[in-house]
Amino acid sequence: MADVTFSNRMQGVTGSAIREIFKIVAAGNVISFAGGNPNPATFPKEELSRISAELLSENGAVLLQYGQTEGYAPLYESIKQVLAPRGFAIGQGELLPLTGSSQGIELFTKLMINPGDVILAEAPTFLGALQTFFSYEANVIGVKMEEDGMDLNDLEEKIKLHKPKFIYTIPTFQNPMGVCMSANKRKAVAELAARYGVAVLEDDPYCELRYEGEMLPSIKSFDTAGLVVHLMSFSKTVSPGLRVGAAVGNSTVIRKMVVAKQGADVHTANLNQAMVDAYVRRGYYFDHVKEIIPSYKKQMDTMVELFSLFPQGVRYTRPSGGLFTWVELPEGKDALALLPKAVEAGVAYVPGEHFYARDGKKNTMRLNFSASTPEQIVKGMEILADVLKKA
Amino acid sequence: MADVTFSNRMQGVTGSAIREIFKIVAAGNVISFAGGNPNPATFPKEELSRISAELLSENGAVLLQYGQTEGYAPLYESIKQVLAPRGFAIGQGELLPLTGSSQGIELFTKLMINPGDVILAEAPTFLGALQTFFSYEANVIGVKMEEDGMDLNDLEEKIKLHKPKFIYTIPTFQNPMGVCMSANKRKAVAELAARYGVAVLEDDPYCELRYEGEMLPSIKSFDTAGLVVHLMSFSKTVSPGLRVGAAVGNSTVIRKMVVAKQGADVHTANLNQAMVDAYVRRGYYFDHVKEIIPSYKKQMDTMVELFSLFPQGVRYTRPSGGLFTWVELPEGKDALALLPKAVEAGVAYVPGEHFYARDGKKNTMRLNFSASTPEQIVKGMEILADVLKKA
Repeated sequence: MADVTFSNRMQGVTGSAIREIFKIVAAGNVISFAGGNPNPATFPKEELSRISAELLSENGAVLLQYGQTEGYAPLYESIKQVLAPRGFAIGQGELLPLTGSSQGIELFTKLMINPGDVILAEAPTFLGALQTFFSYEANVIGVKMEEDGMDLNDLEEKIKLHKPKFIYTIPTFQNPMGVCMSANKRKAVAELAARYGVAVLEDDPYCELRYEGEMLPSIKSFDTAGLVVHLMSFSKTVSPGLRVGAAVGNSTVIRKMVVAKQGADVHTANLNQAMVDAYVRRGYYFDHVKEIIPSYKKQMDTMVELFSLFPQGVRYTRPSGGLFTWVELPEGKDALALLPKAVEAGVAYVPGEHFYARDGKKNTMRLNFSASTPEQIVKGMEILADVLKKA
Repeated sequence: MADVTFSNRMQGVTGSAIREIFKIVAAGNVISFAGGNPNPATFPKEELSRISAELLSENGAVLLQYGQTEGYAPLYESIKQVLAPRGFAIGQGELLPLTGSSQGIELFTKLMINPGDVILAEAPTFLGALQTFFSYEANVIGVKMEEDGMDLNDLEEKIKLHKPKFIYTIPTFQNPMGVCMSANKRKAVAELAARYGVAVLEDDPYCELRYEGEMLPSIKSFDTAGLVVHLMSFSKTVSPGLRVGAAVGNSTVIRKMVVAKQGADVHTANLNQAMVDAYVRRGYYFDHVKEIIPSYKKQMDTMVELFSLFPQGVRYTRPSGGLFTWVELPEGKDALALLPKAVEAGVAYVPGEHFYARDGKKNTMRLNFSASTPEQIVKGMEILADVLKKA
């Protein structure tokens, strides 16, 4: 099969550069700011162990059988509880449990995009979403970022110019920048979408990971036109390994996502849905989220404080939640070229240029703080400051 | 979003007609031969309950974290054990655990098919596969079926005529017909694939559910050209609700499937992979398969025996395993038109025409025996015979 010809859509898609970096880092004795993993110490393994045993013992004949593509019915109520603070109502047929919220990006792209169709996305944005968009031959156009989210003038101009099929945004503690879109901008994005009849894919996996300030209403909460599909995830609050998330959107789109999901994986594993449901239903969820925040806050604060060690001219974001900070080196510096030196010195990060659809800024890097202890963060930031000074 | 325009690929895909029938049947007091579910009494819920609790308690920090797209490493050995009887070796990079074997159909189609490309498939074939093929705008051409699998002359003619991108086949206890491709034909399909340079997607979820005779070597076992991708599933032997299966193919194709899987769901849930692994590793699996066969055989035999009640001119398959039999009414009869009468009388089946890519035979129906007790099968077949006599 050496002469196999893959489909056009998959020709240019070669997998995540980040995952290759992970493999290098995993092999050595390196402090890694390169990952995006939640802290495994936060996983409620004893509760989930008990819950899984009980569920299978009591309801195994149902949970081990095929389920509905539409999802495990009791989970609907639990997801509605979790989403209530986000400020939108969920009507009949408007919710779909997913095999992780990433599946929502895949399904929505599959059902919306013809080759060449435009998607507007924050520049930089989530690498996994870019890979999926490319795999359906979308033309991804970047929207300029400010400290409170997308530049609205740039967004509107590009809507008019490119007539995009949808806008993709991570409004809260954005990956990779860590910034949070202001409430005003969220409202404005919903209004622009309605004015120009453009759909919005609002990807909000970090919503609960707020360490400072008040929760903001979602873009979906301002969506009077039924144009916003909102994605939520249990990966950052309960467990990524269970692969449970959900989409909320108007019933026409959700119905089409169900059809696409039938082919993709028939349904999300029942046990995983039932475990997350029981975790919420038994009252663990909200307490757990409150419990994990102080340690994440300490990790974030430790990293942000040590930016003071970095040489003059280095800029960085100062998030209020999430997992990431974003660093811009002076123009002309190359974070990818610097990476081998950093790894040799004992610290790893992700060069930022991969987070752009095109013309990635070479002088940028993403730093993760959730997967390192405060002690590791101190040591890693000292090493990184040293590497940057020498560069 | 009333005016949303879906992508061309999803315009014509409207979901499984079977699933709609399930909902009608579930509502009434009807003996259903319409499903395709394994018997839930066979699910090893106590073992899996213990296993899940132990795995999470002992290894929760790893299992609840993100995993590799390539899958949970220990599961590789277990899958190799399960696949050993199928007669092919599995080299480095040639195996990929999946979120159910259906995901393999989705990923392989995504990476192989451009709009208009031809897929040759058995006529009739698995409805879920047809939906997936249509969702990538494939031109699906049916290959005539005989009692021992595809008509090889028809297959070769259509390979020459249509230059297909791949051949899709369910060689063992085919869905929906229940027939099994002979060993000679399996070898011939691999040889035809090699001669014409056509890939083969060998979907083999029912392989272990053999109630009579000897296991046959897979098409993959005759694949000297590296053209066959083989799909296996734990859905029919352990649990469909856990969503665990796997693909085996040459490393170039598997590598591209990994890339496509990154976007689809990042990775298959670690817990589910680890549960299946432990179930095999602790020695339950092979004994379990042996244990479930006698009851399935009794269900099959009961159904096949009662075909004698059907009126003259009705033809049916007599399988040696799997979950289904296939019925052909005399020419001119319409199984879909007959369904409301059958349901009213107290029995349901799936009209066969949906299992064809086009020009479905209206006089056909699929009967499932695995989800009914022998007593239900007796009663259901008596009712169905009566309905057929009146028609």
